[in-house]
Amino acid sequence: MTSPDLSTSLRADGRRPDELREVRITRGWLDAAEGSVLVEFGRTRVLCAASFTEGVPRWRQGSGEGWVTAEYAMLPRATNTRSQRESVKGRVGGRTHEISRLVGRSLRAIIDVAALGENTIVLDCDVLQADGGTRTAAITGAYVALADAVAWGTEAGHIRPSRNKPVLTDSVAAVSVGIIDGRPVLDLPYVEDVRAETDMNVVVTGSGDFVEVQGTAEGVPFKRAELDAMLDLAVAGTARLRDLQVEALARPLERRP
Amino acid sequence: MTSPDLSTSLRADGRRPDELREVRITRGWLDAAEGSVLVEFGRTRVLCAASFTEGVPRWRQGSGEGWVTAEYAMLPRATNTRSQRESVKGRVGGRTHEISRLVGRSLRAIIDVAALGENTIVLDCDVLQADGGTRTAAITGAYVALADAVAWGTEAGHIRPSRNKPVLTDSVAAVSVGIIDGRPVLDLPYVEDVRAETDMNVVVTGSGDFVEVQGTAEGVPFKRAELDAMLDLAVAGTARLRDLQVEALARPLERRP
Amino acid sequence: MTSPDLSTSLRADGRRPDELREVRITRGWLDAAEGSVLVEFGRTRVLCAASFTEGVPRWRQGSGEGWVTAEYAMLPRATNTRSQRESVKGRVGGRTHEISRLVGRSLRAIIDVAALGENTIVLDCDVLQADGGTRTAAITGAYVALADAVAWGTEAGHIRPSRNKPVLTDSVAAVSVGIIDGRPVLDLPYVEDVRAETDMNVVVTGSGDFVEVQGTAEGVPFKRAELDAMLDLAVAGTARLRDLQVEALARPLERRP
Amino acid sequence: MTSPDLSTSLRADGRRPDELREVRITRGWLDAAEGSVLVEFGRTRVLCAASFTEGVPRWRQGSGEGWVTAEYAMLPRATNTRSQRESVKGRVGGRTHEISRLVGRSLRAIIDVAALGENTIVLDCDVLQADGGTRTAAITGAYVALADAVAWGTEAGHIRPSRNKPVLTDSVAAVSVGIIDGRPVLDLPYVEDVRAETDMNVVVTGSGDFVEVQGTAEGVPFKRAELDAMLDLAVAGTARLRDLQVEALARPLERRP
Amino acid sequence: MTSPDLSTSLRADGRRPDELREVRITRGWLDAAEGSVLVEFGRTRVLCAASFTEGVPRWRQGSGEGWVTAEYAMLPRATNTRSQRESVKGRVGGRTHEISRLVGRSLRAIIDVAALGENTIVLDCDVLQADGGTRTAAITGAYVALADAVAWGTEAGHIRPSRNKPVLTDSVAAVSVGIIDGRPVLDLPYVEDVRAETDMNVVVTGSGDFVEVQGTAEGVPFKRAELDAMLDLAVAGTARLRDLQVEALARPLERRP
Amino acid sequence: MTSPDLSTSLRADGRRPDELREVRITRGWLDAAEGSVLVEFGRTRVLCAASFTEGVPRWRQGSGEGWVTAEYAMLPRATNTRSQRESVKGRVGGRTHEISRLVGRSLRAIIDVAALGENTIVLDCDVLQADGGTRTAAITGAYVALADAVAWGTEAGHIRPSRNKPVLTDSVAAVSVGIIDGRPVLDLPYVEDVRAETDMNVVVTGSGDFVEVQGTAEGVPFKRAELDAMLDLAVAGTARLRDLQVEALARPLERRP
Repeated sequence: MTSPDLSTSLRADGRRPDELREVRITRGWLDAAEGSVLVEFGRTRVLCAASFTEGVPRWRQGSGEGWVTAEYAMLPRATNTRSQRESVKGRVGGRTHEISRLVGRSLRAIIDVAALGENTIVLDCDVLQADGGTRTAAITGAYVALADAVAWGTEAGHIRPSRNKPVLTDSVAAVSVGIIDGRPVLDLPYVEDVRAETDMNVVVTGSGDFVEVQGTAEGVPFKRAELDAMLDLAVAGTARLRDLQVEALARPLERRP
Repeated sequence: MTSPDLSTSLRADGRRPDELREVRITRGWLDAAEGSVLVEFGRTRVLCAASFTEGVPRWRQGSGEGWVTAEYAMLPRATNTRSQRESVKGRVGGRTHEISRLVGRSLRAIIDVAALGENTIVLDCDVLQADGGTRTAAITGAYVALADAVAWGTEAGHIRPSRNKPVLTDSVAAVSVGIIDGRPVLDLPYVEDVRAETDMNVVVTGSGDFVEVQGTAEGVPFKRAELDAMLDLAVAGTARLRDLQVEALARPLERRP
Repeated sequence: MTSPDLSTSLRADGRRPDELREVRITRGWLDAAEGSVLVEFGRTRVLCAASFTEGVPRWRQGSGEGWVTAEYAMLPRATNTRSQRESVKGRVGGRTHEISRLVGRSLRAIIDVAALGENTIVLDCDVLQADGGTRTAAITGAYVALADAVAWGTEAGHIRPSRNKPVLTDSVAAVSVGIIDGRPVLDLPYVEDVRAETDMNVVVTGSGDFVEVQGTAEGVPFKRAELDAMLDLAVAGTARLRDLQVEALARPLERRP
Repeated sequence: MTSPDLSTSLRADGRRPDELREVRITRGWLDAAEGSVLVEFGRTRVLCAASFTEGVPRWRQGSGEGWVTAEYAMLPRATNTRSQRESVKGRVGGRTHEISRLVGRSLRAIIDVAALGENTIVLDCDVLQADGGTRTAAITGAYVALADAVAWGTEAGHIRPSRNKPVLTDSVAAVSVGIIDGRPVLDLPYVEDVRAETDMNVVVTGSGDFVEVQGTAEGVPFKRAELDAMLDLAVAGTARLRDLQVEALARPLERRP
Repeated sequence: MTSPDLSTSLRADGRRPDELREVRITRGWLDAAEGSVLVEFGRTRVLCAASFTEGVPRWRQGSGEGWVTAEYAMLPRATNTRSQRESVKGRVGGRTHEISRLVGRSLRAIIDVAALGENTIVLDCDVLQADGGTRTAAITGAYVALADAVAWGTEAGHIRPSRNKPVLTDSVAAVSVGIIDGRPVLDLPYVEDVRAETDMNVVVTGSGDFVEVQGTAEGVPFKRAELDAMLDLAVAGTARLRDLQVEALARPLERRP
Repeated sequence: MTSPDLSTSLRADGRRPDELREVRITRGWLDAAEGSVLVEFGRTRVLCAASFTEGVPRWRQGSGEGWVTAEYAMLPRATNTRSQRESVKGRVGGRTHEISRLVGRSLRAIIDVAALGENTIVLDCDVLQADGGTRTAAITGAYVALADAVAWGTEAGHIRPSRNKPVLTDSVAAVSVGIIDGRPVLDLPYVEDVRAETDMNVVVTGSGDFVEVQGTAEGVPFKRAELDAMLDLAVAGTARLRDLQVEALARPLERRP
């Protein structure tokens, strides 16, 4: 994956092709939420709030199992030009739905809903500023907020984990990869995203297995070799994100009194 | 308004009855918006983004005059318990509409839309964390974002102010006042808001005149003397907010290159 | 409040500044409703129907207390030019929501929902013809319809008031006031409303205390002295409306057999 | 159609089977509308407002022809028990749509849209009180309001009728008929409507031709002979309504200055 | 009804005025539905699916009786030019509502909901290709699908018909009739439908009684004699459709294993 | 990908792991559409209609380029149990949006919108019966309908292809792959789909390059080796579908006169 020319020719923002933007994970950004994270991938800034509630949706009652779901949205001026609010339009757009479902599935892949008990955790991922990779930042930050909410629920006695059934079976992170001028690159900001021939979002567990692989040819279809190169970049990038998640969760969290 | 008992007995958070919470006004919180402010009244945190666009709505075209409007909204977990998104419900609620209109009217009271030229400024006020007084914080912060957007538009040559027609004719700020246990108090956080017998929001110009007075008896109707005392508190409180707005606007603003 | 020039110079319709339009309150306009009033403030004509139902909304069940709510709407040709129906638009507008909430709050300020028992009364206020002051006419008429519905519910045995807990703790009426050409005036018809610099709606109990004060500067912000003069006018005007409500309720009401 | 027993045995309200309820047509009920009628069929009370506007919908522009359309609705407490507002539900129900279309078609059958010129007339038919036959009362009243609006448009010079092309080519009225206990009856109030085996609405021109025939078996299907008897009743009933329309239009109409 | 000229002058597609188009009824078109029919009236092609579910809507629970309802819709390219989807528009149009209600009423006229027990059958009638008469084809096909669903429910033991209470009390079919160039014709395809002066849909039971008669003057109002001639045509046409329904139901139906 | 056990152990329906279901492509299923295909993958049955219109959406006018878009939907009883119509719910669901966008992107990857000229082709893909793989069947059938619509537009002179710019640059087909009991399988029917640990949809051009790769772990995350095996299956399966598309397009198409 590190062919000579990839490491020598730098990108517009000075990064190597296989380099992440500066990633910051700030826990406890909200006072009331059971878990909350402001996650930043460069200029992309997403507020992830985990809301813990006892009980589950009606269709799940009596199962003894819990539920995790997510809602993704963008503030109207998160982008370069203002976009209309979905509340004002009166409906949630296709892209919003798609990403909300993706975030929810990604988190459910690493939580044991049986061990969670009949409790629900909703992850709200609101993009405050968008500069490419908002969905991958959302997944990466939401995992940390989820971990804090699970810790809160356990401490509060709502979750009663058995010794041999951890609630969180793994961690999860996501990153975007793409092909620009024929070269695979990692973690695309907006200026690269609009130029990419192929755009791919990859969700990977802490153990390095795939939860989601979503690749789309924007212009010309892509070759098997390009697909393989992008997957290599994504696996390395998410491993680095996993380390940052671990570091963030190792720091102490002060909760509002 | 400063009867002895009011100054001696402090509130739950240690403030005097006529004291504001700590107010912070951070300009330039977003890279792309023509004006943006993160305004904080204690734990209440509102992101105000001003979007400048050339041109006006169809019904105003050809008038030579501009337009200023506002949209207020709350993130689902801004509050103690999560509330459903209005985009998911498929409609904007009455309270949201009411506040959006209030913010828009308040700003239009201090801008000369004729001097603005055929340009539109939209103020998005999104509550990131709510602890009472979100609408008054929104108005207070939105004024600063508006001032930055007007400066941007002037510098960019979209607004051409004549010498004797300033675009902004005054400043504007807002504060809540209420009666708790028979005593008038200024700038109520959530815990006070739910206990208040009367709740009042007052919007005042930098010169001290009224733009809006909205008083509501939550329990028992209120007396004329109580109304007068609340108005006194509000006038003093908004004068202090005006000073903080002036200070914030005096600081240099670095824009994204 | 009655400075010499105010009483000498008359308004376009021949009224003094502190004079109400002709007010008519016709009870029993509908055969089926438990209370119904056609209220007229000059040409403004609002049909207020009170619907009594046993039981309360789900969130109130088991509380032993009742509920009162209101819905305000306008027929499409109530105004000079036809406006689109909100049912056809598919949503209730901000102004409609705002007024519905105002009417509901005003009525709840003078009813003891505990004494009402687990019963609900809905007030439908439909504007048949609009000539300014529709919300204040709605509140004034709705109180009379509410009184009839409470009487009906008591007679029918659904409400069982204890001796020392009257259901209606007071009466309530509302009126608009404004500043035109620098002069405060009472009860503005449409032609005055569009010219007013400041527009204020005031809701006052029979005892003379305030339930709501909503003042808005349409053009230039208003001074404290102007606010005081408008409040004086409103208090006197609502006292006169209270007398008319008392008279209307003193007349016998024949119900459909 | 007048078999002996039909004329001897009276109905619950004392009418003969072929007798209309008391019908009242009050013109000019609204000050602003170009035509307005309060029409009453017994306790059924419908306010019909005709709004005249120059110009036509986009799909008709340049045709030189006009357009007539109608909207029917019911106030929430027009009926014995309150029904939810369609604006609050967020959509117009099937029944409302159906009747609005019926009223529009009925009026277009007797107006020459070419002679109308590029003008639009909207008929709003709002049921203030419902006691059966609301759609037939709406059509009958709407015709009179339409006639007044056409007269207004002609007088104002918006319509320029040629000598040999009258704008209104005929009049139109409607009535309900039904089969109750095997006997055909005319103009059913609510108590009869719910008991009718068959329910039929018939729209007939002043000349006695059919515009609409809508018969529905509520319980058992109906025989050809029953259908014929109902049609006979409807033709006689609408002839009587036409006379009442002619009388109403012969009375002078004072318009608001 | 068969005056000499009617039988000698043929229509554009070679049919006599009293002749149906080629009608095909294909049962079991879907594998999963309890009853399903692809019905064709010439080029008009409607897929009717009957869904049987135990239980009834909430408002009918405990009555011991069942319910039958229908939903009609058209694929966007069923017609000559594409029309927008109602799901994308966000609401069901007036015409769709009207026809759905008509189909439901027609079927309920020939089923004994008491004998059905607390079971619900929903008929989905989706127009795959439209060439006039889609609602009458839908009713005619839906009856056959309903009969199959009733047979399925009986075999499965969900319906327990008593000896003297058949579930289906009769059959039902529908056909369109119209007046073209002054001549009554049966079963109009699209090219005739747009030219018809009067358009009428008639729903008739197998015994020859009327369930619905819906006649509309598209241009000039119609005479009583024309109405009579159209009714004659419709009664003869639906008798022929009844025979085709009987034949179709006599053929064996293989269900998916 | 063809390890011994995969070829010897058959699936529930008798297929080998790398075998497609029986695929049928019927062109010209609708009379009016410019292209139309009934495509069947086993019991899955999707009607694909291509609507050709001159002109493009407003945002594309003047570009000289065309547009291709798609809408996917399911009939309520396409599935084993009936689902509610999206038109009745009042909004298009997330899954529907997602698939509509996928179909549109897939087709745009193999059409040169510049060569298409300012024309629009809409592909409606309506699932009449669903047994797994509806989105992949839709893409595979839609390509054939698109090819017919392009031929129609060229013949009709709306498209004027230059010699060196073919409108369709390649063909496109799609297939689902999954992991069941640890074994990769091709083209999953419903019963396999619900059991699959991983579900993947792959869109491939006639030349064998990727347009979309969408893999989702339903239960446990998947390994890189599993991903590779699924991609191999998909490439072979879509090559077979391409051959079937070529065969179908080679057959003569009779259009409605």
